[in-house]
Amino acid sequence: MSSGRFIVFEGGEGSGKSTAAAAVAARLEAAGRRVVLTREPGGTPAGEVIRGLLHERLSPWAELFAFLTARAELVAAVIRPALERGDTVLCDRFAPSTFAYQVHARGLDPVIVRTANRAATGGLEPDLVVYLDIDPAAGLARKAAESAAVATGLEGLEFHRKVREGYLLQARDDAGRWAVIDAALPAERVAELAAERVLRLLG
Amino acid sequence: MSSGRFIVFEGGEGSGKSTAAAAVAARLEAAGRRVVLTREPGGTPAGEVIRGLLHERLSPWAELFAFLTARAELVAAVIRPALERGDTVLCDRFAPSTFAYQVHARGLDPVIVRTANRAATGGLEPDLVVYLDIDPAAGLARKAAESAAVATGLEGLEFHRKVREGYLLQARDDAGRWAVIDAALPAERVAELAAERVLRLLG
Repeated sequence: MSSGRFIVFEGGEGSGKSTAAAAVAARLEAAGRRVVLTREPGGTPAGEVIRGLLHERLSPWAELFAFLTARAELVAAVIRPALERGDTVLCDRFAPSTFAYQVHARGLDPVIVRTANRAATGGLEPDLVVYLDIDPAAGLARKAAESAAVATGLEGLEFHRKVREGYLLQARDDAGRWAVIDAALPAERVAELAAERVLRLLG
Repeated sequence: MSSGRFIVFEGGEGSGKSTAAAAVAARLEAAGRRVVLTREPGGTPAGEVIRGLLHERLSPWAELFAFLTARAELVAAVIRPALERGDTVLCDRFAPSTFAYQVHARGLDPVIVRTANRAATGGLEPDLVVYLDIDPAAGLARKAAESAAVATGLEGLEFHRKVREGYLLQARDDAGRWAVIDAALPAERVAELAAERVLRLLG
């Protein structure tokens, strides 16, 4: 059975990861590759319901388990079948978000989260994590400018600084698999750098 | 801080546990006690959304995490505050359902589920589990007769036999805390037996 590659796009608010993931998907498709572009939470009927649920504040463990519900369903229903077909899967957020937001910034027990996350993913790990790094103040300002409404979100700047720290620690500990891209660059340049790293992986 | 008692009603399909829980709640209230009657999944806005989600088939781990999302939120938002007020909490399903359905019948890893469940409940355990025991064939027939639609559910008789076995094993291993009631008795008698056990606990 052929096996496709699994690439995850990560970054804080306003980092432009969704735009970059879509741009890379378009390039791969233009080059004739079969690509599945999905997002988390979401990507399945259950996942989209949970995405809606997460707009309200849940207790910390309820939030964690909501993300894992969406992840388990996305892996089982979308990602694994696509990888087994040999497709390239690009996913907007995955387990690294959990370790940045829920563990490092929110403070949930890393051992319990790791155990539960492994159950949700069935042990599936990304072949490459494209991390778009941005100063949280700049990212939140960019996000507020993009949306007509004031995009305050549920958390303050200090939380988003912890999130970034959580990402950078993962990038340091797993450097061979993480590509850190400066998200302050123009969006076209970010997409170009991301596409280069993805194409190098796909060979 | 005074602490109320936490009583869980459990049973397979058609066992009448919801009816019994409501009848016991009414008796306690008539006796002047402050009672919170809730259910799982449900009991909170997030929990009710998840209850709807579970009408469709999810992958096994997604289903587990969906239940734990609802449980974590119910414990944090409803059950703990009520117990801290000194109220008596009656809950229609709780962790014993997870161990009967997802672990014993569905076959999920008990160690992982136990770890994740403990995170969801924050270690909260019932003071009493009222288990309404019924032969699954009789329970499913009763359920089908009650609802206009044919209540086939998503699982067959063999699954429900495993669920019952999973309940009975828990009752055996934790006999001091479990009250096993024959759910083939008339509903009034079941409620009476359940109320007796609850009143004995409340003293």
